[in-house]
Amino acid sequence: MSSEEQQRLLFRDAMASLPAAVNIVTTQGKAGRCGITATAVCSVTDTPPTLLVCVNRKSAMNPVFEQNGKMCINVLSHEQEEMARHFAGMTDLAMEQRFMLNGWRDGVLKQPVLQNALASLEGEIQQIQSIGTHQMYLLEIRHITIAQEGHGLIYFRRKFHATPHQELIA
Amino acid sequence: MSSEEQQRLLFRDAMASLPAAVNIVTTQGKAGRCGITATAVCSVTDTPPTLLVCVNRKSAMNPVFEQNGKMCINVLSHEQEEMARHFAGMTDLAMEQRFMLNGWRDGVLKQPVLQNALASLEGEIQQIQSIGTHQMYLLEIRHITIAQEGHGLIYFRRKFHATPHQELIA
Repeated sequence: MSSEEQQRLLFRDAMASLPAAVNIVTTQGKAGRCGITATAVCSVTDTPPTLLVCVNRKSAMNPVFEQNGKMCINVLSHEQEEMARHFAGMTDLAMEQRFMLNGWRDGVLKQPVLQNALASLEGEIQQIQSIGTHQMYLLEIRHITIAQEGHGLIYFRRKFHATPHQELIA
Repeated sequence: MSSEEQQRLLFRDAMASLPAAVNIVTTQGKAGRCGITATAVCSVTDTPPTLLVCVNRKSAMNPVFEQNGKMCINVLSHEQEEMARHFAGMTDLAMEQRFMLNGWRDGVLKQPVLQNALASLEGEIQQIQSIGTHQMYLLEIRHITIAQEGHGLIYFRRKFHATPHQELIA
């Protein structure tokens, strides 16, 4: 194994140690409808409200995201692990079948919004940048839906977990 | 309250629903030594291993990061909440006092590495971009240290939590 390949594997192990929220990033428009489970979602600024999403360039969804120019970030609750598995391609459900499952509706920007997600943020893609193997999307948020309750779904050490019910006490 | 301000507050509420790993981002070099607690850290690509960090432009640490050109991302364990509070400015410890606490050592790139962090990733800043209120840093990782065990520290609904001990079962 090359030292570059070793460094890549070590980096992946380090990233497995970084607890991350699980999201389904969706799009709908003239180029079609699709979605992908993603943990590489990050808040950038609240002025204007902007999120960042990284998607592997190998994904066939990139041209759909680009052409539609819009996305919705659905932040999953701990009850939505099964949906996360479908959109991560861990099951054999085809894309259109995934959207036929209960829970999907069209949002204000006509993006696929998952009911009972902790938060759904619809926005317009402002910038796309290629970095190594990934496309980085900057999404300016136009409409937000928030669930008042529910625990989060996180991915940590290559497994799904629910956010704990008890907070730490300093 | 203006509708822009309302949208900002709504966005912040939505971000409070996005569980995030807690990190201390440090730097050391000719411009000095400092660090800041940050949740806006995201994996971008493993080729080359690259992380992204967003820091508020108001922070006096930005010129230090820029001039040193290097950073270390320390992914905190659930036992490091107190350190997270110090570097978030939630206590009255001055910057240099924070680094005098037990646990800090110089890494391979001479960046401040926190012992027993789940992972510490030292790297070189490849790109800086201003987006709204924040500076976005792209950090190419050169050296990685990983702890084999330990639970993560997450920030969710404006409180610290430990990653749960039990995984979900699909």
